[in-house]
Amino acid sequence: MTEAATAPVGAALARLCAGQDQYMQHLAIELVDAEIGRAVVRMRVGPQHINFNGTCHGGALFSLADCAFGISSNSHGILSAGIAAHMTFETAVHEGDILLATSTERTLSRKLAVYSVNVTLEDGTPIGAFTGTVYVTGRPHMIGAAIP
Amino acid sequence: MTEAATAPVGAALARLCAGQDQYMQHLAIELVDAEIGRAVVRMRVGPQHINFNGTCHGGALFSLADCAFGISSNSHGILSAGIAAHMTFETAVHEGDILLATSTERTLSRKLAVYSVNVTLEDGTPIGAFTGTVYVTGRPHMIGAAIP
Amino acid sequence: MTEAATAPVGAALARLCAGQDQYMQHLAIELVDAEIGRAVVRMRVGPQHINFNGTCHGGALFSLADCAFGISSNSHGILSAGIAAHMTFETAVHEGDILLATSTERTLSRKLAVYSVNVTLEDGTPIGAFTGTVYVTGRPHMIGAAIP
Amino acid sequence: MTEAATAPVGAALARLCAGQDQYMQHLAIELVDAEIGRAVVRMRVGPQHINFNGTCHGGALFSLADCAFGISSNSHGILSAGIAAHMTFETAVHEGDILLATSTERTLSRKLAVYSVNVTLEDGTPIGAFTGTVYVTGRPHMIGAAIP
Repeated sequence: MTEAATAPVGAALARLCAGQDQYMQHLAIELVDAEIGRAVVRMRVGPQHINFNGTCHGGALFSLADCAFGISSNSHGILSAGIAAHMTFETAVHEGDILLATSTERTLSRKLAVYSVNVTLEDGTPIGAFTGTVYVTGRPHMIGAAIP
Repeated sequence: MTEAATAPVGAALARLCAGQDQYMQHLAIELVDAEIGRAVVRMRVGPQHINFNGTCHGGALFSLADCAFGISSNSHGILSAGIAAHMTFETAVHEGDILLATSTERTLSRKLAVYSVNVTLEDGTPIGAFTGTVYVTGRPHMIGAAIP
Repeated sequence: MTEAATAPVGAALARLCAGQDQYMQHLAIELVDAEIGRAVVRMRVGPQHINFNGTCHGGALFSLADCAFGISSNSHGILSAGIAAHMTFETAVHEGDILLATSTERTLSRKLAVYSVNVTLEDGTPIGAFTGTVYVTGRPHMIGAAIP
Repeated sequence: MTEAATAPVGAALARLCAGQDQYMQHLAIELVDAEIGRAVVRMRVGPQHINFNGTCHGGALFSLADCAFGISSNSHGILSAGIAAHMTFETAVHEGDILLATSTERTLSRKLAVYSVNVTLEDGTPIGAFTGTVYVTGRPHMIGAAIP
């Protein structure tokens, strides 16, 4: 199909996804880099990410990793849905810190795929390890499909 | 110590924590109920929680569960920090849905505690299962300590 | 189909699975009880389950939970394969202890299902919480299919 | 103290741990390589590792990863106890397959440490990703302490 042939994948699709993701924008998470099976996102920890103990909320750290996971797992142009994820929280993160999350595809089969996301400070200090599994629906991506 | 004797715990401490948590407020997550070792929070899914596929972002679902986890694990008046968590994503959630997350303490030892959080729709439909482990620092809670 | 109508499910299938599982037998894990979507297994901790620190190995505790998970997730008569699991290890377990693992179905959809497994001592002391996700292949169970 | 100065760490301690671990021997898991913060173990899948579906049991795959995790996390000579772990199961494993699990230390603090374990076939085919957290007790290792 012509549409399929021209549907965006990789970096082009990642930019469309990030641009259309209201949650990413609400949390001020930015796409840094992407290709097929890989995505890097970035977040500067602001006051809106701080928990009642005065440090960055675990939910914000997970959300950052989950954005990289979601973009990388959808980068093939096929709609994929997260079904389970695990994350460690290894180092306290403070307001003003700049975080990077890099998602890498471990395995991709017809219906399932697994991604490892490494969350670090800008200088590489490890913050957390995220592992997530997606169900690959097999349906073309709605964002790709919407491109004329 | 007099301060320790009057430091808030349980529901009173949970209200202080929720009131002071900027991330909970940024995501419009509300405390519904709490006692020692247990917390219930609530979120109405708004446009700011939606991902690029048009459904509620996994990061928002995890954040909801993590808020219940954080409040319940700090409810004893001792600062506790999340160190690892796992969550399943079992059912797609849409804008307008109302979600509840209920955290229950499984085990509490001197340095570690484990919580199970069940995330459901208001009618009880299961959305996800979260399990989290905290490190119990042994330091009195800063919020409790700040009360004159 | 006649075969489908007479293929075992629930407790009958669970007994066939347990009887045919060489790993369960190697670890001396016994089926205690099962019905559709639920299974209970039991293990007396013996010298073969002990790690280099003199306590029950985490791999043995996970294996016990995984056996309950596997039997309950296959109890519908459809081959299901574990794709991700998380477990907490909350209390040290010693030689001679008797462990129970109870797996309960949280959600079951066409292609995915999630199970919670609670591992305890015989007296109910919590040992660990396991959560696992399976991919439901849709193929009839080979054990069921082998029944004349 | 003289004893502390001569207590084994790294590869020497790993060999003592592996030699004394009854569960590793029961599952025919061998130590391949170790240094401080890292361990590699190996298992040839035999009939005793097979589940009721005729493939390698998830509990055996987790146990392999957990052995690498346990040896690497105790390699500093301080007793460490696993408190939570997650694993993905990405590819079916069959009798006769030879598996390797490589555990790497991500972070180590005074009381907690996190390890990533990659499980593969001998040719590098990815089988599963394991992430585990330990509580560092601070007590010297009993195995190290027993050396005259």
